[in-house]
Amino acid sequence: MSELSQEELDEIYAFAVNLGKEAGRMLLNAAKLRFGNNKREENAHVEKDNAVDLVTQTDEDVEAYIKSQITLKYPSHKSVLPVEFIGEETYSKGASRDYLINDDPTWCVDPLDGTVNYIHLFPMFCVSIGFIVKNKAMIGVIHAPFLNQLFSACSGRGAWLNETQSLPLVRNPIPPMPAKAPSGCVFSCEWGKDRRDLPDSNLHRKVESFMNMAAEVGGRDGRGGMVHGMRCLGSATLDLAYTAMGSFDIWWEGGCWEWDVAAGIAILQEAGGLVTTANPPDDPANAPIENVRLGSRLYLAIRPAGASATESGRQSQERTVREVWRRVRNLDYSRPGA
Amino acid sequence: MSELSQEELDEIYAFAVNLGKEAGRMLLNAAKLRFGNNKREENAHVEKDNAVDLVTQTDEDVEAYIKSQITLKYPSHKSVLPVEFIGEETYSKGASRDYLINDDPTWCVDPLDGTVNYIHLFPMFCVSIGFIVKNKAMIGVIHAPFLNQLFSACSGRGAWLNETQSLPLVRNPIPPMPAKAPSGCVFSCEWGKDRRDLPDSNLHRKVESFMNMAAEVGGRDGRGGMVHGMRCLGSATLDLAYTAMGSFDIWWEGGCWEWDVAAGIAILQEAGGLVTTANPPDDPANAPIENVRLGSRLYLAIRPAGASATESGRQSQERTVREVWRRVRNLDYSRPGA
Repeated sequence: MSELSQEELDEIYAFAVNLGKEAGRMLLNAAKLRFGNNKREENAHVEKDNAVDLVTQTDEDVEAYIKSQITLKYPSHKSVLPVEFIGEETYSKGASRDYLINDDPTWCVDPLDGTVNYIHLFPMFCVSIGFIVKNKAMIGVIHAPFLNQLFSACSGRGAWLNETQSLPLVRNPIPPMPAKAPSGCVFSCEWGKDRRDLPDSNLHRKVESFMNMAAEVGGRDGRGGMVHGMRCLGSATLDLAYTAMGSFDIWWEGGCWEWDVAAGIAILQEAGGLVTTANPPDDPANAPIENVRLGSRLYLAIRPAGASATESGRQSQERTVREVWRRVRNLDYSRPGA
Repeated sequence: MSELSQEELDEIYAFAVNLGKEAGRMLLNAAKLRFGNNKREENAHVEKDNAVDLVTQTDEDVEAYIKSQITLKYPSHKSVLPVEFIGEETYSKGASRDYLINDDPTWCVDPLDGTVNYIHLFPMFCVSIGFIVKNKAMIGVIHAPFLNQLFSACSGRGAWLNETQSLPLVRNPIPPMPAKAPSGCVFSCEWGKDRRDLPDSNLHRKVESFMNMAAEVGGRDGRGGMVHGMRCLGSATLDLAYTAMGSFDIWWEGGCWEWDVAAGIAILQEAGGLVTTANPPDDPANAPIENVRLGSRLYLAIRPAGASATESGRQSQERTVREVWRRVRNLDYSRPGA
């Protein structure tokens, strides 16, 4: 398939934004069925022992809706959604053990990101819709309906909050990364689901990395990063959205799948952010800093940054990447079978 | 002063809600001055090197506004606001080294909670207005304007989101705490500002506690709590609000001052939550579980919980408190001079 024109892309973008709005409404409406709201008779049956079944049903309903809309409008496009790849076991039974994305125009969708938050009705959940062409995330739509926040971007059209506010929020000029980053930075990270308490497990490697980022400068044998704040939201997608917004300076995480990050990466890159690998290379001070491969499962994102008197924005981002790499451990998240 | 009637309290509540709405609007309007919004000429001067001065100015403006409104309407009431006690140094110079709250009707206000979030324009910031009588938090108003969320409660009038939705959200019936809590729970915690990397410092004690709560069941010498999710928002006030909502099951933190927690405790208690001390007593399995003293600086909050076939809601909350105490370390936050 040949390149898409900007006009074709714009049409797909408008479709994706409407899809995200409607899917987010579905998520919020389903959540509201669980609200008590003093209507005892209507809701008494709903919560019972376990909200998880309800949430699974909603997830599947929203996924079916999105998939049917895409198939109807763009029958030639490929779709990648988590239900087809639930868990590593199912995944490894599939034909492909490699990245899920190839050169075809591909929709990469998570109908519900932040599932734990959704189960507990913490507002940090969203639908995430990415559109990928030739391995590049071209369009991203993230709708967090309980927060009234819609993030969207299309290559060449900028990145937006609620379709009216350019991202990053602070611009004209966009501030450079702090001179002593990670000091002065808000660092976003996730504890994730892998909680094995084995020597040198991902949990231990993560916590050691968190400690290095948090501790006072001079602490931790010189690795102390004294970040301005440590944040954990429980949604990789919203971590990326808030990094695009400039609210988070750094996001570092391992274990995400394509659908967790495709839309967020599209939005962050269009806003001017950088996404590379979470795992420090052998020579963190000098290794080239490459854009992340979408299916790598290892992500380090830096917010959009402007130039200072002495550095370009990209230079200040790369300086920050190297300072993070100096403080974090390698995480062990390979592709199943890879 | 004698007890306030419900009618007097209702009037004060209406005043507090309006105060919270207006103060939140002031916070959001000041934040929006920092948005670029493509109006280059208007905003170019604003960000410069440092957003902190701007934020300090906003904090002071909102504080002055709130204080003037309270003085005008209720000249006999006492007010406790952070500016008068900034930092421990200033605090310890004051006459009182004891709790800031006595039996007088007292407004306990944080014009801007989540300062780091506000500086970075992460939406988790709010104004927090508590009204205390005889050491009990009677009224709480928390307004997070960038989230469009207003939490409010008055003793005897229930707890509310945006004045229309009863808290906790899931009710009729309110679910009990999970049978194997902290497993199944969302655990909210904060890294805070004390990042000293000394042996057994608060930072190390906190992280050891976080690890115990996060690790798989059976891990950490039997302390592994395998919580459903770990969350860090950077706002003690909103941690309490989301615990009242039922989104967070457990919040554990040390170091907060009265103004960080007064409104949140009022809302959480009115919603049916429990707040006791963060530090485990000598006999965590059997020690009595007392409501926290407002100025204790050590807080463990449990969401509202309903009865199950075998336990009252309070019993399931107390069971959860003991399970948390078994996994966390004592934190060292005393009153200055105490």
